[in-house]
Amino acid sequence: LATSIVVAKELTKDEQKVLMQLKQQSMQSDLSYQIIESLTTEVGNRLMGTAGDEKSIIWAVDKMKALGFDKVWTEEVTSTQWLRGEAKAQIIAPYPHDMVAIALGGSVGTGEQGIQADVAHFNTLADLKAAKPGSITGKIAFVSYRMERHIDGHGYGKAVGTRVQGASIAAEKGAIALIMRSVGTDDNRTAHTGVMRYSEGINKIPAAALSNPDADLLVNVLKRGKPVSVFLKLTSEIREDVVIKSANVIGEITGSEKPEEIVAIGAHLDSWDVGTGALDDGLGIGMVMAAAHHIGQLPTAPKRTIRVILFAAEEVGLLGAKEYVKVHDKNMSNHVIGAEWDFGLGRIYKMKSGVGAQSLNAMREFAQYIAPLGVALAPENNARAQSDMGALSDKGMPSVSFSPDGTQYFDYHHTENDTLDKVNPDDLKQNTAVYTMFAYFAAMADVDFRQ
Amino acid sequence: LATSIVVAKELTKDEQKVLMQLKQQSMQSDLSYQIIESLTTEVGNRLMGTAGDEKSIIWAVDKMKALGFDKVWTEEVTSTQWLRGEAKAQIIAPYPHDMVAIALGGSVGTGEQGIQADVAHFNTLADLKAAKPGSITGKIAFVSYRMERHIDGHGYGKAVGTRVQGASIAAEKGAIALIMRSVGTDDNRTAHTGVMRYSEGINKIPAAALSNPDADLLVNVLKRGKPVSVFLKLTSEIREDVVIKSANVIGEITGSEKPEEIVAIGAHLDSWDVGTGALDDGLGIGMVMAAAHHIGQLPTAPKRTIRVILFAAEEVGLLGAKEYVKVHDKNMSNHVIGAEWDFGLGRIYKMKSGVGAQSLNAMREFAQYIAPLGVALAPENNARAQSDMGALSDKGMPSVSFSPDGTQYFDYHHTENDTLDKVNPDDLKQNTAVYTMFAYFAAMADVDFRQ
Ligand SMILES: [Zn+2]
Ligand SMILES: [Zn+2]
Ligand SMILES: [Zn+2]
Ligand SMILES: [Zn+2]
Repeated sequence: LATSIVVAKELTKDEQKVLMQLKQQSMQSDLSYQIIESLTTEVGNRLMGTAGDEKSIIWAVDKMKALGFDKVWTEEVTSTQWLRGEAKAQIIAPYPHDMVAIALGGSVGTGEQGIQADVAHFNTLADLKAAKPGSITGKIAFVSYRMERHIDGHGYGKAVGTRVQGASIAAEKGAIALIMRSVGTDDNRTAHTGVMRYSEGINKIPAAALSNPDADLLVNVLKRGKPVSVFLKLTSEIREDVVIKSANVIGEITGSEKPEEIVAIGAHLDSWDVGTGALDDGLGIGMVMAAAHHIGQLPTAPKRTIRVILFAAEEVGLLGAKEYVKVHDKNMSNHVIGAEWDFGLGRIYKMKSGVGAQSLNAMREFAQYIAPLGVALAPENNARAQSDMGALSDKGMPSVSFSPDGTQYFDYHHTENDTLDKVNPDDLKQNTAVYTMFAYFAAMADVDFRQ
Repeated sequence: LATSIVVAKELTKDEQKVLMQLKQQSMQSDLSYQIIESLTTEVGNRLMGTAGDEKSIIWAVDKMKALGFDKVWTEEVTSTQWLRGEAKAQIIAPYPHDMVAIALGGSVGTGEQGIQADVAHFNTLADLKAAKPGSITGKIAFVSYRMERHIDGHGYGKAVGTRVQGASIAAEKGAIALIMRSVGTDDNRTAHTGVMRYSEGINKIPAAALSNPDADLLVNVLKRGKPVSVFLKLTSEIREDVVIKSANVIGEITGSEKPEEIVAIGAHLDSWDVGTGALDDGLGIGMVMAAAHHIGQLPTAPKRTIRVILFAAEEVGLLGAKEYVKVHDKNMSNHVIGAEWDFGLGRIYKMKSGVGAQSLNAMREFAQYIAPLGVALAPENNARAQSDMGALSDKGMPSVSFSPDGTQYFDYHHTENDTLDKVNPDDLKQNTAVYTMFAYFAAMADVDFRQ
């Protein structure tokens, strides 16, 4: 009474052989590393609207052409300007100390004269929320919550709320500024930036992150039970009147049989204006460009088109992704499946699909191909693509999300320490192999991933 | 024909019991941690001649008194001033990048306008030495040698030559400045300072260290084979006309039977003007003060006097130690034995003695007491005490050197990252137990360690 089901494979024997060749090639090539080395050495950091951003667009177009992409083009993305300026934070009393601080992205400044006030300390954002309106009037709110370290990075979600909404919540309670422990797992005197938002109708107050050791120090000073006075100067500026321009950079390996059907692999081209953006998102850029190149070098083009999308302005609010889904709205149904890399710096250990029920067998087949690389198929089938590409998932694009080891990622994320030396060439080869194999499989499998 | 030798123990059974009590107490107490927390929170960094140095002297006197030392006093140490100013380093061409740099201690400045020149790259100090005089005239010399990581820190000795003598050697070859990879094993955008010296009769040129990732970047830029232009600004100043004052801080637990005989345990009170000097040398300060306190709390005072010496101005050239041996020259023979802590941040795994041949049995006996803490007795008997205390060894004081795990130490050494969070409370307990047991044993053993 045993039932044996033989499922037909999507890839022919020959295609499977090509897939294994692509795997071997990605595991032997250091192309993705060389791409990241080139970007970080010749461009460096690249916040939207900076000279680095402009250079990175030229760099990406040139690199795609050099790598033999069939089509390369840019699509403009605009926004208004934010200027970081400088940040200075000091404990004035009872024990003077300089602290390492960085403005949160989008924060208003303090003015050149800075502000000095007593500190109101909260262990968590929930504690700050629970404070009575007016209870910390004239004070600098300080949230000392420390991000937890986890392989899947879920400590980030628990910590990032203070960064995004903390300033407006503190302002509601009467605070004149927010300082917070960085959203990061390291112990360096290096603060983590990242985007923040002001709620409508609430006084905009300056917001900065302290490095972990400085947050520890401030907590220890506060433990003495005396009033603690802090000086904060941020010369950040929101310039709503200045339009800045960037661009999504898109390149394709054209499909041979169904060129209109698109397998999208992406990363974001911009970075914060600290470090060289080697991890965030240099890693993604390296692996998706290398993946398309490896496939483009095959004697026969893949059936579907491989589209590499390097999104603009992810860090400041996914602006490139929003623009992309607007511009390509009519063509969204031709995006047959997509995946992005914008997280972690270790080996991929898990893959999650987000496809139609009938496509699950194809996903299982693909999972078998990458299983020897240490990648397990998650039981859920509700994946949204990472980061920018999630905007395409939201428009109905079938998606895959690959989970790399994120244990170390938030040691470096959005800091000056996001540099090339943090890239592990061996892990990157595995990552590149997975993305290459995914793109090839998706371009060859005769499956409608929406079904 | 087997010979059995029964060696009499130096400690009586009762004294051994006290030793075990002291061990247990040090392993349970967090006093040494609390001392470091207090110093780093209430004082912070403390380069000779700064406000922090002045505060640290008051802090140390107060702390020794609070810990029940019998006598506490200071001995003045003077020097001339060096001002760090600010440091700015940038790659100007072909790929502009900001670099993280720090002035070496004692360097002259560049003037407010800074200097810009092409880079002459050397992999090692030996390569720089081998360059022909005049061969790099008008250039900025860059030595990219990377320090090796070892448990005993011996990579430091191989790397530090560039820091100490590099500027004068570069100047001999015609260079107008020296930039070097930091003497450090980390991958942080945090540069390592430390003292440098100018050779007599050679042009004094500015000298700065780059963080490891910035040195990597500069190497990668240089690999492109185009001329690389760097801008360097140091506003450092040597002020030979300004006399600055500091002090050795000395405290004692007076001996009950031979109060004139001194067991010296030491550390240095000063630090570089970066970080909070939690490791260098907060660790040493915490453990020697706690050791003396634990012994001071015994119902019966030890036979010999325990003298805690917190040396001034170690970082800028062992000035406190030099002053100490000058002032105490006549009394040096009463310094029966000594040990300092000024290295590493892990567990002690080795002890090396430097005593008279007849005292070796006593050293072996002591080694047996600390063996359960994981400390092995090294076969050599030629120890010089660490750092400052080495100046007393050189004057004939018998010495012990305890080797802690130094694997991580040079990640933090002389950087902004030398902060309290790097102190491992458990390792520190072991360290404190060893120093406490050493001081008690040395104060009780009826041995002339010179013999
Ligand atoms: Zn990102
Ligand atoms: Zn990011
Ligand atoms: Zn030291
Ligand atoms: Zn030092």
